[in-house]
Amino acid sequence: MSKISYITNIDEWKKEFVFSNETRIRFSETDMFGHMNNVSPFIYFEEARINFLKEVGLFDIFHDVTGVPVVADLQCDFHRQLYFDQSIRTYVKAAHIGHTYLDLHYMVLNEQNEIVLTGRGRIVHVDKKTGKPLALTDDMKDKLHTYTASE
Amino acid sequence: MSKISYITNIDEWKKEFVFSNETRIRFSETDMFGHMNNVSPFIYFEEARINFLKEVGLFDIFHDVTGVPVVADLQCDFHRQLYFDQSIRTYVKAAHIGHTYLDLHYMVLNEQNEIVLTGRGRIVHVDKKTGKPLALTDDMKDKLHTYTASE
Amino acid sequence: MSKISYITNIDEWKKEFVFSNETRIRFSETDMFGHMNNVSPFIYFEEARINFLKEVGLFDIFHDVTGVPVVADLQCDFHRQLYFDQSIRTYVKAAHIGHTYLDLHYMVLNEQNEIVLTGRGRIVHVDKKTGKPLALTDDMKDKLHTYTASE
Amino acid sequence: MSKISYITNIDEWKKEFVFSNETRIRFSETDMFGHMNNVSPFIYFEEARINFLKEVGLFDIFHDVTGVPVVADLQCDFHRQLYFDQSIRTYVKAAHIGHTYLDLHYMVLNEQNEIVLTGRGRIVHVDKKTGKPLALTDDMKDKLHTYTASE
Repeated sequence: MSKISYITNIDEWKKEFVFSNETRIRFSETDMFGHMNNVSPFIYFEEARINFLKEVGLFDIFHDVTGVPVVADLQCDFHRQLYFDQSIRTYVKAAHIGHTYLDLHYMVLNEQNEIVLTGRGRIVHVDKKTGKPLALTDDMKDKLHTYTASE
Repeated sequence: MSKISYITNIDEWKKEFVFSNETRIRFSETDMFGHMNNVSPFIYFEEARINFLKEVGLFDIFHDVTGVPVVADLQCDFHRQLYFDQSIRTYVKAAHIGHTYLDLHYMVLNEQNEIVLTGRGRIVHVDKKTGKPLALTDDMKDKLHTYTASE
Repeated sequence: MSKISYITNIDEWKKEFVFSNETRIRFSETDMFGHMNNVSPFIYFEEARINFLKEVGLFDIFHDVTGVPVVADLQCDFHRQLYFDQSIRTYVKAAHIGHTYLDLHYMVLNEQNEIVLTGRGRIVHVDKKTGKPLALTDDMKDKLHTYTASE
Repeated sequence: MSKISYITNIDEWKKEFVFSNETRIRFSETDMFGHMNNVSPFIYFEEARINFLKEVGLFDIFHDVTGVPVVADLQCDFHRQLYFDQSIRTYVKAAHIGHTYLDLHYMVLNEQNEIVLTGRGRIVHVDKKTGKPLALTDDMKDKLHTYTASE
């Protein structure tokens, strides 16, 4: 796990997660190799990301009259195999709050609390009309800070 | 194949198809049983349906300022197993043109020209505001008739 | 609802459901028309079908050394629009137990307990080697009967 | 584009791609925000990756009696919005050939030959029984070198 560029200290990194979202690997999310298809983590990340933003109170604010959240990048590291019907818990945190963007980190644990997936991705607050980045408001940042274990 | 409610005579039924859409079974569309997942045919039907409506010249007309196409029902009969990387051809025809709706039939052939899937589904032309069925215009019906082998 | 071929009396039909499976419409399961994509019901049906078979005690028996369950057909009727983040409950019942197959019916209710989707599909018990239908054992039928409200 | 960690010089990086795979954004791969869903690039990457490995002659060798290819990580950078029915071309190259792994890079161009997505991911050659990394054979490396524009 030492080679993951977005994780400096795994124990500290792990402690900063407050929010999590539970789901179960569906049959349609497996493939002919007998395990979870490699596309599926990004379904779970999206589900957890939206539920995190709703919990924080940012989901509705984020796509209001002027702005819309746009995914700039996404990445996932696969640490252990996942199989049909496994129950997983996807943790999400705002690892970095920029001027116009948000870096979210993801950690997925299996039923034995082992890390099976980690990931990260940037969301940019974009002006609907111009397509250019918009500053996150103080209200947005306050909401995120309140919901982050540490920073 | 005699039990399929929407097929009276398979040879005649087969002859009426003019339009087809080619695709290949993706790895992410298989499941841990080693074959195409049962959800996947409806992805291929939708792709073929939209390409059929585009070819006929109905796709843009269908969802104009007033109306929108709404799927009322969908069904699929599985005749032969399908596997990763098989190339399939999905045929589509307008089997019945109603006052406010369209019954589309689907036939999927494998590389050996064997019928692997058949299906059908109704699309209703619906008023965006009221949600009520809208009559298909004569122009819409003409376009469909021109594109149907027989009726 | 009177036109659905697999429903004779909707009130009686509705009463026969014992098992249900809860889920939430994911963002990735919507499409650019702003609502749930038409492929998605078959994801929910599969999830509910497998959980039903597990609850009944048939999932592991069904794909043992000799046999495997094969989907013969699937259909879905769309009664009301579904949108992102709606919580839905998918009911499953064994509507008919044949010699070598099982007809499952599906009913999906929204948060207001309105019927939003109905469906059905046949699963055939197939011999892994020969690909031919295998008789359902008495044990399988007993398990299903115990779990069905009426028949 | 200067911030992408896996791209040093974009012009040189672009020139090294030899293989590409064409596809079209499906309706079911969009979401209620009106564009391609953020999960979809990983479907296209997988499709292109497998077709690349088949072209190179590695797909069958890779999952033989002893070994199996395992995805270690995946990432995608979103450069431009993608919409329903856009035709895209996904380029794949072996950017780095390790002792037991392969780093693949991805570049997706739209119909105007603009870069819309870039990405990368590592595949490890793993022993089926022990789950431990297996050395890539000289034959595997030769096949890859022949198919790479430069390295």
